[in-house]
Amino acid sequence: MDLGDGAMDGEAMAAVDHGGSLGRARALFPHAPEPFVDLSTGINPHSYPLFDLPATALSRLPEPARLRTLLEAAAAAYGAPSADHVVAAPGTQILLPRIARLLKPGRALVLGPTYAEHARAAALAGHEVSEVGDLNALAQADLAIVVNPNNPDGRIVTRADLLALAQKLRAKDGLLVVDEAFMDVGPRAESLAGDVTRGGIVVLRSFGKFFGLAGVRLGFALADMATAKRLAAELGPWAVSGPALEYGICALQDAGWRDEMRSRLAADAARIDALLGRFGVPVAGGTALFRYIEFSGVAGLFAALGRQGILLRHFAERPHVLRIGLPGCQDDWQRLESALAGWAVRRDDGPPQESEP
Amino acid sequence: MDLGDGAMDGEAMAAVDHGGSLGRARALFPHAPEPFVDLSTGINPHSYPLFDLPATALSRLPEPARLRTLLEAAAAAYGAPSADHVVAAPGTQILLPRIARLLKPGRALVLGPTYAEHARAAALAGHEVSEVGDLNALAQADLAIVVNPNNPDGRIVTRADLLALAQKLRAKDGLLVVDEAFMDVGPRAESLAGDVTRGGIVVLRSFGKFFGLAGVRLGFALADMATAKRLAAELGPWAVSGPALEYGICALQDAGWRDEMRSRLAADAARIDALLGRFGVPVAGGTALFRYIEFSGVAGLFAALGRQGILLRHFAERPHVLRIGLPGCQDDWQRLESALAGWAVRRDDGPPQESEP
Repeated sequence: MDLGDGAMDGEAMAAVDHGGSLGRARALFPHAPEPFVDLSTGINPHSYPLFDLPATALSRLPEPARLRTLLEAAAAAYGAPSADHVVAAPGTQILLPRIARLLKPGRALVLGPTYAEHARAAALAGHEVSEVGDLNALAQADLAIVVNPNNPDGRIVTRADLLALAQKLRAKDGLLVVDEAFMDVGPRAESLAGDVTRGGIVVLRSFGKFFGLAGVRLGFALADMATAKRLAAELGPWAVSGPALEYGICALQDAGWRDEMRSRLAADAARIDALLGRFGVPVAGGTALFRYIEFSGVAGLFAALGRQGILLRHFAERPHVLRIGLPGCQDDWQRLESALAGWAVRRDDGPPQESEP
Repeated sequence: MDLGDGAMDGEAMAAVDHGGSLGRARALFPHAPEPFVDLSTGINPHSYPLFDLPATALSRLPEPARLRTLLEAAAAAYGAPSADHVVAAPGTQILLPRIARLLKPGRALVLGPTYAEHARAAALAGHEVSEVGDLNALAQADLAIVVNPNNPDGRIVTRADLLALAQKLRAKDGLLVVDEAFMDVGPRAESLAGDVTRGGIVVLRSFGKFFGLAGVRLGFALADMATAKRLAAELGPWAVSGPALEYGICALQDAGWRDEMRSRLAADAARIDALLGRFGVPVAGGTALFRYIEFSGVAGLFAALGRQGILLRHFAERPHVLRIGLPGCQDDWQRLESALAGWAVRRDDGPPQESEP
């Protein structure tokens, strides 16, 4: 076939390694006690309370009016100018190549290190993609991508800096994509959700992480109305499932739950920092949904905890960092504490940690 | 912004009118008795039996291993060469623009009249789109699209004719897309599911229609392995929700249910034909999931049944045809029969049907 859409190189086609797979955990640690305590994601372990769905949520096509209600709830919850600025999708992931294709193939710069799917999606769309460590360098891009707060290190870019960048990009018909997947627990004053009206900015919001319902598949793009309409046309009718509509509407309208959950997650994050600190594990950043660990012994820590069935997130290309999510119940906290204690004893008394597999 | 992807004309952006919306039904027939008997879709009213999902199907990210199991079940159920030839998506709808973009913008021809989203998606991808009524004319296309069996009239194109067309298209690096959304009840010997290995053919299969679970959002593309890999890369990980994975695996592995359902739907289709025939309504085609009605009085029939809360599918651009789905229970059959009787009496005794709104 005559290929459209620019080059499709092998890297863009290859699957990215992610956290959250128990199959992968079992392959890595076949002798670990089950069930695994999966701390390899930033998904809230305290899920929004599920309720029984009407059977029609599964049997019938999703109703356009319910989608409209969802968009209104999302606009209100995230602070978008209106529902006409919101697009709902089965997770933000599926939107990434579509958003990258809002521009003709050009130069895409990703503020990194960060979530790897952004670079992959931009490459799929035919852009020449580079990762840069300096926000100022992003002004050279046609398509600039910032994850804010960043995954995995929690780095925050201020709204003022992002708006200044957006202005430079807009002046040359470029686009700034801000992935606010973890902004529900982030410094919400830095969100660009309310700044999309003029165009040149697309903000991504994830439903599954903060609400702990990643399997439902729901995410949003916030954009100027013309761009929102264009993205919605790409998705077509019924992109969002009946369960995602019903749980999404209920959860996004529940401001009380969101406020309480933010407090709870902040307390959990403080608790895990204290626990890690007790065993000499330095927390270098993160958000309230995950913590970021950086020290020379992370490979040994990852392996020691994995053998105890405690799964953290490591990164093949950055062997000195780990990400750790929040335990969901007292048993999981206890297992984490025991595994840390066991690791600390061996670190202090045993052979050097570098000899661990 | 500098627009990629060719022209985005207003038509491609505009929403297509579809069946299956109760909101729309209420707007059309505000005084109709509720609940509506919604016969405006081709969705099986006898849904695959639902079962309780583990909470993790909603809370956790979908597991790659479960996705693999789903692809294997789909390959076996549909007759694809292997799971490597299958891509799973949250409904086939979301795949249409992506498939249209497998080719550079060129000439897209749709065998029509048919499901309107194909032309819209091809236009979104930048193709110059026309609808043609003659299969032979499709050989002039870069991208040829056939719905088989066709929606709404049930027209069938033979596998031999489609393979001959595919060969012509393949010789010039073109692509044949065959939407087999209703092939589960169609003449399965005409399916191209087993013919995708050589490339140049993409077959679409819908899960929600035959299994009566349209709200779950699940559909498949069958293609050569390179194309399947490319489409999967576009969707990214986790495109299919936890509920869709679990219900999809169970239903697609259940050959007994599928066989029984085919018999049941064939009997239901014969029953509705007989019922319509009793009232002088001629059935001109369709599949076992919907019937196609074509006569000069369809506007009056649509309005008369709508006022009784029986919703059929009409088509703004073809006022002389209707599509009618299958009632799901005895009450619904009875209401349909009563509404038909009321319409027939007025047709025979009252003012000319053309005067009805």
